[in-house]
Amino acid sequence: MHAHPKAPAPPAALSVHAVPSVLISEVGPRDGLQSVQAVMPTAHKLAWIDALHASGLREIEVGSFVPARTLPQMADVAEVVRHATALPGWTVMALVPNLRGAVAALEAGVHKLTVPVSASEAHSLANVRRSRAEMVAVVREIVALRDATAPGVPVEIGMSTAFGCTLQGAVAEDEVVWLAEQLVAAGADEIGLSDTTGMANPLQVRRLFQRVRAAIGDKTGSAHLHNTRGLGLANCLAAYDVGVRTFDASLGGLGGCPYAPGASGNVVTEDLVFMFEAMGVDTGVDLEHLIAARAPLRAGLPDEPLYGMVPDAGVPAGFRDLRRL
Amino acid sequence: MHAHPKAPAPPAALSVHAVPSVLISEVGPRDGLQSVQAVMPTAHKLAWIDALHASGLREIEVGSFVPARTLPQMADVAEVVRHATALPGWTVMALVPNLRGAVAALEAGVHKLTVPVSASEAHSLANVRRSRAEMVAVVREIVALRDATAPGVPVEIGMSTAFGCTLQGAVAEDEVVWLAEQLVAAGADEIGLSDTTGMANPLQVRRLFQRVRAAIGDKTGSAHLHNTRGLGLANCLAAYDVGVRTFDASLGGLGGCPYAPGASGNVVTEDLVFMFEAMGVDTGVDLEHLIAARAPLRAGLPDEPLYGMVPDAGVPAGFRDLRRL
Repeated sequence: MHAHPKAPAPPAALSVHAVPSVLISEVGPRDGLQSVQAVMPTAHKLAWIDALHASGLREIEVGSFVPARTLPQMADVAEVVRHATALPGWTVMALVPNLRGAVAALEAGVHKLTVPVSASEAHSLANVRRSRAEMVAVVREIVALRDATAPGVPVEIGMSTAFGCTLQGAVAEDEVVWLAEQLVAAGADEIGLSDTTGMANPLQVRRLFQRVRAAIGDKTGSAHLHNTRGLGLANCLAAYDVGVRTFDASLGGLGGCPYAPGASGNVVTEDLVFMFEAMGVDTGVDLEHLIAARAPLRAGLPDEPLYGMVPDAGVPAGFRDLRRL
Repeated sequence: MHAHPKAPAPPAALSVHAVPSVLISEVGPRDGLQSVQAVMPTAHKLAWIDALHASGLREIEVGSFVPARTLPQMADVAEVVRHATALPGWTVMALVPNLRGAVAALEAGVHKLTVPVSASEAHSLANVRRSRAEMVAVVREIVALRDATAPGVPVEIGMSTAFGCTLQGAVAEDEVVWLAEQLVAAGADEIGLSDTTGMANPLQVRRLFQRVRAAIGDKTGSAHLHNTRGLGLANCLAAYDVGVRTFDASLGGLGGCPYAPGASGNVVTEDLVFMFEAMGVDTGVDLEHLIAARAPLRAGLPDEPLYGMVPDAGVPAGFRDLRRL
């Protein structure tokens, strides 16, 4: 692998910190902000990202490289990426729906790309106006670009509506597995599964992640689960039980999918971190600092409701000892 | 076993309905109402209980036999028991903290008694002004009364603070196992474990239920888990994973423990039923009817906040089919 000016160095601090038992991938600045009407001013975004970084998070999705006329919330994404990548010890990701977005994201210096591909044909057409097969071709183009210009940058797929679709209804598990195989064949490094519409249940999460892992092995990526019907943490536990070790979550539960009617509610990062830490599973995240990161989020989006039980209830006294009983 | 006028017939419809894969034990009229300041008028209680019955629930805890001066919410408990036991096909339980309560509950015709015994010595003294050893002796008295006057009525223990205590801090698992053994030796039929203070995590739930089952076998009873820190359903899933088949929950998440500072939030029955039904695990409960039972609860307690994600999000279209994919 040759060096290239656009290929970022691997995050320096990862090698000196203990490897966390699970990786919490904070998606609020991307998934959260693109789901709300208000536009968070850039200075507030940067302060929020600084606070998230201070909590010990090791991965963050900071924005989408999409036209500003489509998502005005993301007009400053290149500046946000430059700010986030200047902070040490974490992987900075951005969402790119197409080749043009990937060019801009690599130009800005992201550590990792994530490409949304819908498992539901109906959702794919509604969300990006492309069929699934067309999106596989887009991924192939993005991988070729990456290989040519930034070979150190992984390309992850977030496979949306993998557990069901409000537009189409059921999504056959055979099609999820088929699509995962197509995407790996197109050169993607990781395939994560997203419960975009809040329809997943724990048995389904276990079964589908196991089937996908049987098909594509270690290229099986993160679990992106929603709390729409209260099952967010139960579904994360189910994914953990079958070997998933990367979990997407959003501070305050901000976000969801604006194109899936009725869908809302990312898993709350604070509650997810509490669950794993209480279980003795290291996240690398300091819960008090994480909860403190709600203040700059509130400052930047004063009218948006924030979710989460742990911020209200507080952590139990001495909970790091309790978990070892 | 001889017949006795105080021994109720077993609930008739249990034998003609399919046995549910899990038993949802609704505790709202007891645990919920004794946790709120307002007193629900009797007519509203009865209408609410009728609506819960119509949803297909097979077990309900309708009240506590405690002095009305202590808990004015429970002054009408005998009337409520008589009303609930006249409805077919479910098991009507009442909480009794002492022998006097058990006499009154059996007199009223309950199908099953539940006795709260704290795993934490500090919580036991604060909650019922008795040590754990004294409570074991109380259970022995109640069992003797039951044997003499109502041999068909099971005596269940709800072991509170089994996963931690806000007053005492950690509760050693060895003590939980020891107490479960003492209670079985005293004649109790089932020992359930309660996360009174919302401190349980899924690994702890699996470990402790497994340890208790290893000690007392099939006398291991229900999981009574709280959603204080958002882990309610994840903890229920964890308990299900290790063989627990009875789950306490409260409509709208009403209730908690008024004597454990900061504790609140029973598992929401609606979300719990959705989780199991979505997994294909039969609860016997009709979710639409269950959600409809929130209306009489609201009518009787208009100022009390109700929780639950499924009532807001609705069930996904065709979710009974989705679960089988």
